Amino acid sequence: MLVLGLDPGTAITGYGLVREVAGELSVVEYGAITTPAQLPEAERLLQIHRQLSALISQNKPAAMAVEKLFFSRNVRTAMAVGQARGVALLTAAQAGLPVYEYTPSEVKQAIAGYGGASKEQVQQMVQLLLGLKEAPQPDDAADAIAVAVCHLHSTRLVGLLKHVGQA
Amino acid sequence: MLVLGLDPGTAITGYGLVREVAGELSVVEYGAITTPAQLPEAERLLQIHRQLSALISQNKPAAMAVEKLFFSRNVRTAMAVGQARGVALLTAAQAGLPVYEYTPSEVKQAIAGYGGASKEQVQQMVQLLLGLKEAPQPDDAADAIAVAVCHLHSTRLVGLLKHVGQA
Repeated sequence: MLVLGLDPGTAITGYGLVREVAGELSVVEYGAITTPAQLPEAERLLQIHRQLSALISQNKPAAMAVEKLFFSRNVRTAMAVGQARGVALLTAAQAGLPVYEYTPSEVKQAIAGYGGASKEQVQQMVQLLLGLKEAPQPDDAADAIAVAVCHLHSTRLVGLLKHVGQA
Repeated sequence: MLVLGLDPGTAITGYGLVREVAGELSVVEYGAITTPAQLPEAERLLQIHRQLSALISQNKPAAMAVEKLFFSRNVRTAMAVGQARGVALLTAAQAGLPVYEYTPSEVKQAIAGYGGASKEQVQQMVQLLLGLKEAPQPDDAADAIAVAVCHLHSTRLVGLLKHVGQA
C-alpha cells in the first residue's frame, strides 16, 4: 500500500510517499511544495493545489494521512495553516483519496514508541525505519513521512486484530 | 460590476452577489452553502468547492470579496474557518477572479458609516442600501452581501479619486 503523508502550510507543504510491502517500508519520494511569499494568497493556494494534484495523479496513493488540527499559539498562524490544509483535503477528496488524521502524539508513538518523543528523535527514527542515508529535509517532509508511517502502522495493526478476531 | 461577497465556513458559507450600475446597488442573489456535519471534513470542503464553482460559472462576477483573517477566541475554530476560506480562495483563483480582503471595521465603515457599528446596524443598513423587503437571512449571507458592498464602495472611491487626479 502506498500512502501520501502531508504536512500542509501556505509557505511550505511537506509531503512523503511511503510504501509498505509485506511489512517492509520504503520511501518512494519526498519533498516540499513551496510558494513565493510575494504572490497573492489565492495564487499560492492554487500552486499547492496544482502540485498536489499532479503528485497524486502520478503516484496514485491509496490514502492521504495528515496530522489532526494542532494547537497553535497564534490564531493568525492557525488560519493560514487551515487554508493550506483545506486545499489539501479538497485535493484528496477530488481524487477520491480517503483522508486519515492522527494527533501529534499518535505519530510520535507510532514512530518513536512513545508520545512524548522529541522532534529530533522522530526524525532519527524516520531515517532508521526507512533506511535513509540521511535525515529527510526539510523538516516538513520528515513530518509528512512520519504521519504516512503512522497510518501504515495503524492500518497493519487493524489488519492483525481482524486476523485474530479482535476487531 | 458584479461582485461576489463571501463569508466562508465549513458548516455554512454565506454568499451574496451584488451588482453596481451607475452608482445603483442591487442584489442579484444571496444565500448559503451548507454541508452536513456527519460527512468527513474533506467531503464537506468538496461540496463547498463544487457549489461555489457553479455559482461563479453561472454568474461570472468580476471579483470576490471576503473579510480578512479575523481573530477568533478559539484556535480550533480559526483552523476550521481557515480550511473553508482556503477552498474559497482556491476556487476564485481557479476561475481567474481577483480576491479583495477587508477588515471587519472596513466593512462596518463602508456600510454603516462607522467602524464600531453593531452586527444588527450593519444588517439593517444592508437591507436599506439594497432596497430589500427584509433583512437577508442567514446572517452569513448578510455578512457576505456587506463585504461585497464594501468592495464596490472602495472601488468607486478609487475610481473617483483617479477621476480628480488624486490616485
